[in-house]
Amino acid sequence: MFRCSDRDRALFEAGIKMGTIYHQFVGTPVDATNVKALEKAIESSIRVQPFVESVKVRIIFDAKERSDTYDYISLAGEMIDAVVKIRVNDVAVIAEMRYDACLKYPLMYVSEVSL
Amino acid sequence: MFRCSDRDRALFEAGIKMGTIYHQFVGTPVDATNVKALEKAIESSIRVQPFVESVKVRIIFDAKERSDTYDYISLAGEMIDAVVKIRVNDVAVIAEMRYDACLKYPLMYVSEVSL
Amino acid sequence: MFRCSDRDRALFEAGIKMGTIYHQFVGTPVDATNVKALEKAIESSIRVQPFVESVKVRIIFDAKERSDTYDYISLAGEMIDAVVKIRVNDVAVIAEMRYDACLKYPLMYVSEVSL
Amino acid sequence: MFRCSDRDRALFEAGIKMGTIYHQFVGTPVDATNVKALEKAIESSIRVQPFVESVKVRIIFDAKERSDTYDYISLAGEMIDAVVKIRVNDVAVIAEMRYDACLKYPLMYVSEVSL
Repeated sequence: MFRCSDRDRALFEAGIKMGTIYHQFVGTPVDATNVKALEKAIESSIRVQPFVESVKVRIIFDAKERSDTYDYISLAGEMIDAVVKIRVNDVAVIAEMRYDACLKYPLMYVSEVSL
Repeated sequence: MFRCSDRDRALFEAGIKMGTIYHQFVGTPVDATNVKALEKAIESSIRVQPFVESVKVRIIFDAKERSDTYDYISLAGEMIDAVVKIRVNDVAVIAEMRYDACLKYPLMYVSEVSL
Repeated sequence: MFRCSDRDRALFEAGIKMGTIYHQFVGTPVDATNVKALEKAIESSIRVQPFVESVKVRIIFDAKERSDTYDYISLAGEMIDAVVKIRVNDVAVIAEMRYDACLKYPLMYVSEVSL
Repeated sequence: MFRCSDRDRALFEAGIKMGTIYHQFVGTPVDATNVKALEKAIESSIRVQPFVESVKVRIIFDAKERSDTYDYISLAGEMIDAVVKIRVNDVAVIAEMRYDACLKYPLMYVSEVSL
């Protein structure tokens, strides 16, 4: 039966965390009043998952005044800036998610693997 | 063209908030370490929506020890206890969501309409 | 103890369906290849909920060619056009969700209540 | 600057798909009437993401009669059985998600890496 190396597993787990951040929370109502609470909730929910050494999430948006009571702002993938560090035994992987203004979509990528 | 009364609108908006709490957040990783942060994030994101006068969310679960590093607990509808108060002009509506142990599913209902 | 009228209940249930459509499915990967399957899945999942007489969902987006393999399109609230008909005994309520190009956000509203 | 190998990237992408399946769709209303449409929608939305060679999703639940109109069944992680095959150039990775009855939670794992 196939067994992952620690490196394999760390990369797989890093991907799971990226998918979790994006697909659990995109759509959440957000404005200047709750952005910090939402960042904290995303970070702490990712820490619940296995192999997470650290996680940092920033939600980036124009903190413009709401124009009226119906103005409903939702978390979009483009607004998420996240760095997650995964450790499986001796292997650490850093994965990141951020909006790429050239490509015009949120990019998820591995920025470091260290042994 | 049809126009809602304030009462109609308040009831409709109360329903939207119930659907938001359930369908945005069910699935979020949760354990004893992040339950308060998650409750706060849900409450504050509902307050972003229009017509919300107050909102209280409690997540109820056995804070048992995690058995191992893979033990992955997710927010289920059965764990959510929520009370939302909506106001549209002079009409206030209170809607609630909680697990009904007899019926064995989470119930969403209107508990009060006051003029 | 408070008891809703059929009209009250129908409006509350209509709101729940609006919240469900938006907050369950926003964020789902979508392009021209899966848009019909996603519309059908949203419609059929709403029909699982109580009191739904009919539901129609359209996802509106530029079916432009994907520019490269990383081009990741997600369902946004602005892309959803939905009409849900709720019936509670003799009361029928029609609720709609669509993007308002003037207001620049997705609007959820009650378009008809019939006795 | 760090560059992933094809193997690294395939494992990371496989993890993203697992996180997407779980966190986008858990909570969706489901019963015998829409289970096939939901499976198809999940599969086709995963195929929209990059590097996916194939994906198979099965939702497993007791197709018991609904006890009454309020009986609201939602997709839980425990009900998902998924196999995703990722390809990055010459490297193929198979990842799976299924409920482990011993451990009592849904497990996500890499079942094969082939060069």
